[in-house]
Amino acid sequence: MSKARQIHQIDGPFKMQHGTLSNPCVAYETWGDLNRQQDNTILLFTGLSPSAHAASSDLDQAPGWWEQMIGPGRPIDTSMYFVVCINSLGSCFGSSGPASINPETGQRYDLDFPVLTLEDIAKAGHEVILSLGLTQLHAVVGASMGGMIALAYSVIFPDFARALVSISSAARCLPYSISLRSLQREMIRTDPDWKNGNYDPDQGPDSGMRLARKLGMLTYRSPQEFEQRFGREPTAEESDDSFGINFEVEAYLESHANKFVGSFDANCYLYLSRAMDLFDLADHGGSLANGFERVGANRALIVGVKTDVLFPISQQKELAKGLENGSREITFVSLPSIQGHDSFLVDMDRFRPILCDFFNCSMNQPGKLKSV
Amino acid sequence: MSKARQIHQIDGPFKMQHGTLSNPCVAYETWGDLNRQQDNTILLFTGLSPSAHAASSDLDQAPGWWEQMIGPGRPIDTSMYFVVCINSLGSCFGSSGPASINPETGQRYDLDFPVLTLEDIAKAGHEVILSLGLTQLHAVVGASMGGMIALAYSVIFPDFARALVSISSAARCLPYSISLRSLQREMIRTDPDWKNGNYDPDQGPDSGMRLARKLGMLTYRSPQEFEQRFGREPTAEESDDSFGINFEVEAYLESHANKFVGSFDANCYLYLSRAMDLFDLADHGGSLANGFERVGANRALIVGVKTDVLFPISQQKELAKGLENGSREITFVSLPSIQGHDSFLVDMDRFRPILCDFFNCSMNQPGKLKSV
Repeated sequence: MSKARQIHQIDGPFKMQHGTLSNPCVAYETWGDLNRQQDNTILLFTGLSPSAHAASSDLDQAPGWWEQMIGPGRPIDTSMYFVVCINSLGSCFGSSGPASINPETGQRYDLDFPVLTLEDIAKAGHEVILSLGLTQLHAVVGASMGGMIALAYSVIFPDFARALVSISSAARCLPYSISLRSLQREMIRTDPDWKNGNYDPDQGPDSGMRLARKLGMLTYRSPQEFEQRFGREPTAEESDDSFGINFEVEAYLESHANKFVGSFDANCYLYLSRAMDLFDLADHGGSLANGFERVGANRALIVGVKTDVLFPISQQKELAKGLENGSREITFVSLPSIQGHDSFLVDMDRFRPILCDFFNCSMNQPGKLKSV
Repeated sequence: MSKARQIHQIDGPFKMQHGTLSNPCVAYETWGDLNRQQDNTILLFTGLSPSAHAASSDLDQAPGWWEQMIGPGRPIDTSMYFVVCINSLGSCFGSSGPASINPETGQRYDLDFPVLTLEDIAKAGHEVILSLGLTQLHAVVGASMGGMIALAYSVIFPDFARALVSISSAARCLPYSISLRSLQREMIRTDPDWKNGNYDPDQGPDSGMRLARKLGMLTYRSPQEFEQRFGREPTAEESDDSFGINFEVEAYLESHANKFVGSFDANCYLYLSRAMDLFDLADHGGSLANGFERVGANRALIVGVKTDVLFPISQQKELAKGLENGSREITFVSLPSIQGHDSFLVDMDRFRPILCDFFNCSMNQPGKLKSV
């Protein structure tokens, strides 16, 4: 557990869209300091699997999942901003979720956890903001699922965030990505070790989680990247098993699966995955147009990647178009990165300058080195 | 079993690339009649899962998998051509494969079946051609895996087929499609009912086969088609299971999985799937260019679909370009079908006229109705 992790326990019942939790916890980390005007907070929501540890700090020097983006002198410049990253409600890194103990039973929630929505995650994150005494945010930011949560946040709390940053995200998921996630969940649920959700946490559905992670990697990256990186290269060691690991691309997926298993709880994965399918901005006001109308930010940055198969560039255009309201300042960037959906985590040379420009980071200011 | 199915049993040992079979069988069906010059045969290889029953006939009136394409007056016009469709060696519809009895043990081959290659399938198909007393073919035709086998056939037996038709196929598979198939195989192999390949045929790895089929459907169709057909439509009946079938697209995949399970042998699937990964035209002569140089046909038709995620249109262009040799007549068609890789099975209005033109079918001749 990160020493930098802080826990806000919500006092009393927390109403979710499909149920109620008693005194749930929301884990978060912060970087930088709140300014005197209390108007420099950037609220960051994460994708499906990361914790709130987005970047290193004095308290926890381990690199975070967006290490190159957050810090003093970095695009989200913690010498200028107070950054708060939320571990999603339903996740397993300090926030309450299916892997937490249900106070009513003394056992893990598992499938007794209420159906989770991205709106629930946005609201739980907002409880942290309120607990910090904040009444406004400089921006709410998210990539992938985090971008959808940031959008939900901007609709539910339109008076808080003055800016919205959505990266490789969507106003709602399309049936192709729904079916990919549905299949990932089925891989986990058909693993006999899932035991209808009542697995021993030390002996969970590892096999299903491995398959789900491999399919995940296929949807997070792109055919173009695989072709450039792996081609038809065979593994250095020849396998005796003709159905085993014979191509480098198979070894790559295997190593990602090995890293993932044991690091994420299976039921949490199921809940968060389904929450993405369920989100639809049109639920806010009865139509997409009405949903977009409720968004409060007066500046928006929408970034997408042309090789993204999970959140295709057409969905980024839909977001940018939908957010146009005559007065809102909109920046739309379509990137040619070949790493697909994951580009925001790896193609930092393309992403850094965009965030830096939007947040007017010190690299961008006269006399400072421009990001490479 | 189709009454139209014929079996050619190869006399003596059949040398595969990685082993030898004793007197294996090759199943096939035929339509139309051989002409006096014995030069009107069209040899058809199939994709991974179909049988040799490509079209109905008097002997078997059940519609075949390419029913609209083959028959009297149809694009592959059986009033003009003698059509032979081969059930791939390694498959489970009459040809010898992992599900057949190994004469040496009296038991199913299962994983004792030698590693299978597309070249083996081409050579087994050629045994049928020889058994029919043929010394030349009007054309060799295939779509998907069948297109790769047709290409292999044209390289191994360059003097036989005067024309080559390759639909949504490739000179070799790219790492993205290799990893998708690798994951499908892992789904089957991690199903406890697979029992390391030694399952009871009546109690095979159904769960793994279901997952593999669903992933298959996702790679056979396209995001565009899913968006048009299903959108975010919920199922008519609400499910109690929040991880169950809640969207129409999930119900669609479920129905395809249900149809597939029990109709195809798991080990056969593994062998054929891996054979696709292993095929590389560059193995014939040391480079792709050398491989292409060995292709014997003097006419070629290459058809691809822009929404194909499994055999992308760039691979069709590579085929068409590679087959250019100054004297060969090449027709390259890139189709805007939205059904992805499977378009050749469903977007018949686009595919019929192309095959009809290439084979100068009667629809194309004066006084006949042009295909719509």
